[in-house]
Amino acid sequence: MKIAIPLFDGITALDAIGPYEVLSRLPGAEVTFVAAEPGPKRTDTRALALTADVALTDLPHPEVLVFPGGYGTRALMHDPEMLDWVRGVHSSSQWTTSVCTGALVLAGAGILEGLEATTYWLELETLRRYGATPVQGRFVEQGKVITAAGVSAGIDMALLLASRIAGDTVAQAIQLGIEYDPQPPFDAGSPAKAPAEAQALVRAAQRAEAEAETVAG
Amino acid sequence: MKIAIPLFDGITALDAIGPYEVLSRLPGAEVTFVAAEPGPKRTDTRALALTADVALTDLPHPEVLVFPGGYGTRALMHDPEMLDWVRGVHSSSQWTTSVCTGALVLAGAGILEGLEATTYWLELETLRRYGATPVQGRFVEQGKVITAAGVSAGIDMALLLASRIAGDTVAQAIQLGIEYDPQPPFDAGSPAKAPAEAQALVRAAQRAEAEAETVAG
Repeated sequence: MKIAIPLFDGITALDAIGPYEVLSRLPGAEVTFVAAEPGPKRTDTRALALTADVALTDLPHPEVLVFPGGYGTRALMHDPEMLDWVRGVHSSSQWTTSVCTGALVLAGAGILEGLEATTYWLELETLRRYGATPVQGRFVEQGKVITAAGVSAGIDMALLLASRIAGDTVAQAIQLGIEYDPQPPFDAGSPAKAPAEAQALVRAAQRAEAEAETVAG
Repeated sequence: MKIAIPLFDGITALDAIGPYEVLSRLPGAEVTFVAAEPGPKRTDTRALALTADVALTDLPHPEVLVFPGGYGTRALMHDPEMLDWVRGVHSSSQWTTSVCTGALVLAGAGILEGLEATTYWLELETLRRYGATPVQGRFVEQGKVITAAGVSAGIDMALLLASRIAGDTVAQAIQLGIEYDPQPPFDAGSPAKAPAEAQALVRAAQRAEAEAETVAG
């Protein structure tokens, strides 16, 4: 079973690495990192490069697609080459999935039209413009399409996917293998739970980033 | 504040990327991926390369060290160059931390002697040989030394570290920023919780890996 995870400049690393860490442990699965042009891609913070080994055109029909997010998706959701590839993959995939703003690329490809879907909590309303019904949830499963919430939600989504593909026991073994027994020191991981001051900091950071992007061009 | 995360062949990607995703969002912090020789390092599954930009010798005194795990640590915990660097870093660090079997490298450097510490659940007893007292816990804080349990535990540990460095509100904002509101579909992330069948699968996979390494090496 071939599992494709696209990489691109401006990716949020954990969006890709969470599902990779889960799905690469699936018996018989092969995770391949793909990109329009293979090679190192800089993450959103610029502090890290993740290398894509294979060109999109060399892996047109993986059984599973996991599209990660990051600000790089703002360009990709309008990129004809990427959208064509995503549509081609979806035409034959067993599972088409996204993490965080990876959902915006699925939306741009028309895949979420008429479906319930989720994405990063600050981008939920964007989905509506593409005919999807935004839903707040850790992940949303609609037939073979699964969209996950922001960044770390890809781990939870990938465990669900592992159980769908290989059964509950394998998924539980993977969860134990990555010792995923989450015990965050705070309970602030969703807008419904985070204190107002913390939420204000995130919104301010997003505004600053959007302004920097406007200045950058 | 400079935060160093060593990369090496045979690293478990999530060990490094979890803390990176948290700590790179700390105001004023700069995360740098370091290696004995800069360049791309292959993860334990061989499916991905993460690039280290900076040589160990060029970053001798970061304020924070996060040492990730993976089977590559089995060699590194006996590697004089790496152990010297780790000791040098620890001599002036504000925080010396590890995720998963990264603790074995701290142990090899003598840093865990006389301390309580944790690591990947299957490697806890190894710590005892280095004078540490193994403790089952999501993370163990002993002065400026924090060791985290396996793979995904680095996310929880890094949030604690973020709160120690920048206060609870910043840590909560980071948690919201990565939407870390974990909802795994199973509750199998520790040996105490995982069904026996799932545990048997993990132990069998570890035996197979150890045998493959013997054959390979």
